Amino acid sequence: MESVNIDFAKAGGLVPAIIQDHRTGDVLMLGFMNSASLAETQRSGEVVFFSRSRNKLWKKGESSGHVLKVHELRIDCDADALLVRVEAIGIGVCHKGYRSCFFRALETDGTAKITDERTFAPEEVYGHTEQEKKA
Amino acid sequence: MESVNIDFAKAGGLVPAIIQDHRTGDVLMLGFMNSASLAETQRSGEVVFFSRSRNKLWKKGESSGHVLKVHELRIDCDADALLVRVEAIGIGVCHKGYRSCFFRALETDGTAKITDERTFAPEEVYGHTEQEKKA
Repeated sequence: MESVNIDFAKAGGLVPAIIQDHRTGDVLMLGFMNSASLAETQRSGEVVFFSRSRNKLWKKGESSGHVLKVHELRIDCDADALLVRVEAIGIGVCHKGYRSCFFRALETDGTAKITDERTFAPEEVYGHTEQEKKA
Repeated sequence: MESVNIDFAKAGGLVPAIIQDHRTGDVLMLGFMNSASLAETQRSGEVVFFSRSRNKLWKKGESSGHVLKVHELRIDCDADALLVRVEAIGIGVCHKGYRSCFFRALETDGTAKITDERTFAPEEVYGHTEQEKKA
């Protein structure tokens, strides 16, 4: 055991938080956390990001119900990135209707190719507001 | 196929790049890429980051030989994060001597607990300079 000072300074008060399905190993999304959102994530056991576009805490699943239950939190060697291994509740984390936000391959010619299958209709989950767009 | 404009603006010219072992699914590290490092990664087929601390391109493995061969590049829904699925050459990516930089669990009391086994002696790979500290 060692005390760890998370390095929020390197990215303006934020650290990137990788969200990984703890059973399949699939990377589901990446968000950012500030000190308050990390504390709230640890307190509640469900992932809370800091939304850069809305400049406030953002509980993942607040509108969709697709919350991310924390299975394990990991910190990297330089204490400037988090890996959150989760149980993802619901049929997908992405507001575009996919299980993972990384549903496209990036080709060398600069195009993106959709490789995954849609798992849900986003308009049925989010309505037409797409309230839960990522930060 | 659709053309994609990667959103480098949201984080000052950078996007986070998650490095994942394409066979095991393990998340190995997180670095940042700017436009030039992404182009060089795609051209060479090996991961090149942008080092925030040294303010220049940083070819992973340049001193250790532990290069990351690109198996697949993925882009997220908002085009502001990359997932690089790789074959990791060598015995570990972390300059502290571990296979993954996420070798510690973050406990709720703010301490970090080492959970992984060391796979190599960093002083034998990097000498005493730790040249390859993460950005």
